[in-house]
Amino acid sequence: MSVNLAGNILVTGTSRGIGLELVKQLAEKTGKEAHIYAGCRDPEGKRAKDVRDLATQFPGKITIIKLDMSDEDSMSAAFQTVSRQIEPAGLNLLINNAAINKPDAPASMLATRKQDMMEVYETNVTGPFILTKVFLPLLQRAAKTNDEGDPMSCRRSAVINISTLLSSMERCPETFQSAQMYPYRTSKAALNMLTRCQAEDFRIHNIMVTAIHPGWVRTEMGGEQAPLTTQESVAGMLSVISTLSNKDTGKLLDGESNAIPW
Amino acid sequence: MSVNLAGNILVTGTSRGIGLELVKQLAEKTGKEAHIYAGCRDPEGKRAKDVRDLATQFPGKITIIKLDMSDEDSMSAAFQTVSRQIEPAGLNLLINNAAINKPDAPASMLATRKQDMMEVYETNVTGPFILTKVFLPLLQRAAKTNDEGDPMSCRRSAVINISTLLSSMERCPETFQSAQMYPYRTSKAALNMLTRCQAEDFRIHNIMVTAIHPGWVRTEMGGEQAPLTTQESVAGMLSVISTLSNKDTGKLLDGESNAIPW
Repeated sequence: MSVNLAGNILVTGTSRGIGLELVKQLAEKTGKEAHIYAGCRDPEGKRAKDVRDLATQFPGKITIIKLDMSDEDSMSAAFQTVSRQIEPAGLNLLINNAAINKPDAPASMLATRKQDMMEVYETNVTGPFILTKVFLPLLQRAAKTNDEGDPMSCRRSAVINISTLLSSMERCPETFQSAQMYPYRTSKAALNMLTRCQAEDFRIHNIMVTAIHPGWVRTEMGGEQAPLTTQESVAGMLSVISTLSNKDTGKLLDGESNAIPW
Repeated sequence: MSVNLAGNILVTGTSRGIGLELVKQLAEKTGKEAHIYAGCRDPEGKRAKDVRDLATQFPGKITIIKLDMSDEDSMSAAFQTVSRQIEPAGLNLLINNAAINKPDAPASMLATRKQDMMEVYETNVTGPFILTKVFLPLLQRAAKTNDEGDPMSCRRSAVINISTLLSSMERCPETFQSAQMYPYRTSKAALNMLTRCQAEDFRIHNIMVTAIHPGWVRTEMGGEQAPLTTQESVAGMLSVISTLSNKDTGKLLDGESNAIPW
């Protein structure tokens, strides 16, 4: 099944889990004119073998780029690389997927250190903040050169932030005991605020900014009891992403396009 | 006018603005059995002159303690000091007021650096997280020894986090253009999540955790056009705080006890 996405797409955190599957399904489900930039911390390393295999499997469609969400210099370098390669086109879709979760389960308050709070915020919030700021000129260019049809869409120019149901303060009473995860939850609430602010900020440029909950997925982070496979989660998200329009900017959506309350 | 607060009260960020006024009005409006611990970064420094003057003005009622929200060691040392002084009583009320805002106005995305994001989060979120964790044994002791009347109240055992209307994602579209402040907004959304999580976590101990919006106040941070004086804001907050009960735990309230949507 193809998805209605095209152009230049950058995904972060692609060495495993949801990020890796996003690259795979985007490569499979988009047309020839689409190109996927797959960001990962260490493109030459052992952990990036799976995404390297994908790049081999889809020749000319995937470019792996070095990208560390805690390292500003790597973001500027990635911008230079992508910029040169896509000239004169812009970046149509940036998917901020890279995220970490510390400490390991049960991640109670007492087990959580200051360093956990700071490191998780750095990667999960400051990372997408700086990366989106760095790539803004390319998103603006895509929004300008694609001015037909919907004022906003993921084909024109958009930022998708991968958030979580655990970021919902409204839903906290029902989710807290099974996954306390203070650093992760506070970071994802902050990521939702970032989504909301950038949606306001970028409205004038016709760049959409939307947060998505991938569902509870059987990844290293989600654990083995999770009901969704990575394949199912990503298929659902891509189907949601490809139908978004300007009414969805600044929202947090689940895998069926329903808004999750903040 | 007196307020219905008593016991041992710790306020952070008391060298200026809302924190200083909280110490003043708490000293004025509580009875003899109340004691106020006034945390500030540099008790001997020039900036702490006003809170030192207050301590002189209310002899035996205010203890100034060194407390830096970006320094864990200062929190442990403050715990030791307060612990010794209030033995065998507990801490009835912790007001997490200390906060910073960077960069200076207009604080647009493009003017905001990674360091601003990290420093604001460290003081505004990680600070209250660690401080509350460190003081939890004293809050638990207060909750246990004060088991008459309401199951939860600021006289028994409570944490009040000073938040802001700017933390509301629901209200973001109407507030964004006049105060973009990405680091501050993302930090305060995260502080709301912290409030929400600790409210769930501490329910079993009968410790209340509530976030309060002080209104838009004429302080160094709020600027000169703000409609409320610091005196008015603090009087309103103390009146709200002294009437809170278990139905208010885990909420964000304005100066008239109305819940602000997340």
